[in-house]
Amino acid sequence: MSNHVYKTIELTGSSTKGIEDAVQKAIARSAETVHNMRWFEVTDIRGHLVDGKVDHWQVSLKLGFTLEP
Amino acid sequence: MSNHVYKTIELTGSSTKGIEDAVQKAIARSAETVHNMRWFEVTDIRGHLVDGKVDHWQVSLKLGFTLEP
Amino acid sequence: MSNHVYKTIELTGSSTKGIEDAVQKAIARSAETVHNMRWFEVTDIRGHLVDGKVDHWQVSLKLGFTLEP
Amino acid sequence: MSNHVYKTIELTGSSTKGIEDAVQKAIARSAETVHNMRWFEVTDIRGHLVDGKVDHWQVSLKLGFTLEP
Amino acid sequence: MSNHVYKTIELTGSSTKGIEDAVQKAIARSAETVHNMRWFEVTDIRGHLVDGKVDHWQVSLKLGFTLEP
Amino acid sequence: MSNHVYKTIELTGSSTKGIEDAVQKAIARSAETVHNMRWFEVTDIRGHLVDGKVDHWQVSLKLGFTLEP
Amino acid sequence: MSNHVYKTIELTGSSTKGIEDAVQKAIARSAETVHNMRWFEVTDIRGHLVDGKVDHWQVSLKLGFTLEP
Amino acid sequence: MSNHVYKTIELTGSSTKGIEDAVQKAIARSAETVHNMRWFEVTDIRGHLVDGKVDHWQVSLKLGFTLEP
Amino acid sequence: MSNHVYKTIELTGSSTKGIEDAVQKAIARSAETVHNMRWFEVTDIRGHLVDGKVDHWQVSLKLGFTLEP
Amino acid sequence: MSNHVYKTIELTGSSTKGIEDAVQKAIARSAETVHNMRWFEVTDIRGHLVDGKVDHWQVSLKLGFTLEP
Amino acid sequence: MSNHVYKTIELTGSSTKGIEDAVQKAIARSAETVHNMRWFEVTDIRGHLVDGKVDHWQVSLKLGFTLEP
Amino acid sequence: MSNHVYKTIELTGSSTKGIEDAVQKAIARSAETVHNMRWFEVTDIRGHLVDGKVDHWQVSLKLGFTLEP
Repeated sequence: MSNHVYKTIELTGSSTKGIEDAVQKAIARSAETVHNMRWFEVTDIRGHLVDGKVDHWQVSLKLGFTLEP
Repeated sequence: MSNHVYKTIELTGSSTKGIEDAVQKAIARSAETVHNMRWFEVTDIRGHLVDGKVDHWQVSLKLGFTLEP
Repeated sequence: MSNHVYKTIELTGSSTKGIEDAVQKAIARSAETVHNMRWFEVTDIRGHLVDGKVDHWQVSLKLGFTLEP
Repeated sequence: MSNHVYKTIELTGSSTKGIEDAVQKAIARSAETVHNMRWFEVTDIRGHLVDGKVDHWQVSLKLGFTLEP
Repeated sequence: MSNHVYKTIELTGSSTKGIEDAVQKAIARSAETVHNMRWFEVTDIRGHLVDGKVDHWQVSLKLGFTLEP
Repeated sequence: MSNHVYKTIELTGSSTKGIEDAVQKAIARSAETVHNMRWFEVTDIRGHLVDGKVDHWQVSLKLGFTLEP
Repeated sequence: MSNHVYKTIELTGSSTKGIEDAVQKAIARSAETVHNMRWFEVTDIRGHLVDGKVDHWQVSLKLGFTLEP
Repeated sequence: MSNHVYKTIELTGSSTKGIEDAVQKAIARSAETVHNMRWFEVTDIRGHLVDGKVDHWQVSLKLGFTLEP
Repeated sequence: MSNHVYKTIELTGSSTKGIEDAVQKAIARSAETVHNMRWFEVTDIRGHLVDGKVDHWQVSLKLGFTLEP
Repeated sequence: MSNHVYKTIELTGSSTKGIEDAVQKAIARSAETVHNMRWFEVTDIRGHLVDGKVDHWQVSLKLGFTLEP
Repeated sequence: MSNHVYKTIELTGSSTKGIEDAVQKAIARSAETVHNMRWFEVTDIRGHLVDGKVDHWQVSLKLGFTLEP
Repeated sequence: MSNHVYKTIELTGSSTKGIEDAVQKAIARSAETVHNMRWFEVTDIRGHLVDGKVDHWQVSLKLGFTLEP
């Protein structure tokens, strides 16, 4: 691991269920094109309100993956 | 939407269940007097401990709503 | 001035023209109900994009006013 | 306490005496209209200078109170 | 409570289930040796990714407890 | 909108005219290759000085767009 | 001093009198078990409110001390 | 450029017109006594309100210049 | 006031008495050479410890003054 | 330079030698695919520990490059 | 690793040589009493000046280690 | 030391060698005109890239010195 170079990208996932599900949706979408994903960090937890209730959660994250040497 | 003015207030909701429920309780209480609520942003996640366990979660949020023109 | 107590509220104004105009719209709307406004501080400059262009600017500000004694 | 919803407002108090007195003046003014105040947090300590001396201190605080159920 | 002195420590808990469970695991481990725990504040929400999915969540918190007089 | 995943990138635009124009130049350049751009947030306002005057403004922004499902 | 290693801990002191007294109470309690204390930095100034007045101040600090070689 | 040492100072410019003009007034005043100014960064955008309108904008900036060798 | 340009400098004052006195000592020293001082903002509250007690307080501040036109 | 648009990406480089070497490894890897790199800014300095010693340093940076017009 | 609880402590190491050496001295001292150290993060880089030169560097870090189950 | 007033200035030093050398160059230049320098704190680590490599490092610091009484 001491030779690796990582790249970090920022994503926002949405979910009507909650915070963890919004994170997992962002990661699932990213996994379609990005390989070697290693970690994430939540940077923002927001949500949209409709008729006085949470309509969906929006969670932003930084996602790190290994660049192939 | 390009003519709207929004106001943001800060609330803290409590829950014995978890983070999402604390957010929803704050929003439900606010909905009794505030209309046209649009979004929220979580600013702080805390909790109180009793006998070595989480007694209740306390989640602070900024809540934005449209001011009527 | 050494006896005054100020209250600060947070607003977001929108404009298709630019940053200063979004600030002024938020202040004009606030002036309808708030008196003795003294200062503001810009806390966030955002905008919405439609068809690859800025559709409108959204500027958040803290606005301070004197509470009457 | 696990069912409470709190609201937080921002105030700035002034005093010729010092920091604690400026906090207390902001709280005393707020107590005229707000009930069930629970806590405060100092967010900014400033002051105005006249003739090379502190004319008055200005201390900003967040003040939290319980919304009645 | 006006005579108490509190100490704050930083912990990180892990969980395959989610954020609340990671917090509770950190607190449960701390309760083995620390008494009079009063509150916590979440400072960081991270996670490790394996095969394009969340393998486990890692939540950091500050945990405050009363020092006995 | 509750199913969308957004990606955020960081750009810096330059302009001899002012802040809004620097933002619009960054967005116009980005629109050549990025679709479904939704919002931006200004993160930094800088500028270069030549002969005691502003030669050009440099404005950094985060720009969010929808990832196609 | 160029060989020293310092450790930093976080404490919160309480006082009905004011900010300086809350700091001194935290330090006095810490001095019972920690030696070679060198410096502190105030990180948070809060307080509890009862009946519309400050009941006690709570001041958090980082406290650094030399680890014996 | 690899041998230069820069100094950074902080200024606040005022303008009834807007943000860019307040920056330029601060830089114009500074140019009377400071040479070799290279860049600036806006750190704060504020303003004073009179009769419910922006009376003047106040923009703070860090300004960097080369120290002569 | 709408034509003024302000400069901000950073000072740290020391006092065995407390926070306000450390601020006032920094301002008194600055007043020997700087005119037209207008405001200050406290940026850091620290102190040195000797024999388990506060030996002196060290308070850092930003100090703003008007540049003569 | 007043017409350029820059893009910023985030990378983390690793090294057993030290901070500068970790930065240079991240830049060398990036240079394989990115042209017109102009500047970087270190955002985080971390490291992994094995057997009580630094096994390798991990330095995160933002890296800016010119987008071709 | 998904069951681990980590504790984080803050240290400051000193060195006449440079930043990496100051980090390593703090870790070496900590290794005398702490086991299972996993990572560190640099939080502050300072130094003392004597006769217009760097006398020694002072680097603060957060250091994480696994609590035994 | 309890009577001293310190002033803090901001400098940026450059070096083709590395971080410590950039700091030392800023301090050496400052020592030509400033006496009684006591400490520094690194606030930013940047660098310029030429042909895919680090051309020179740029390190910003706050530098504190005693004002003569």
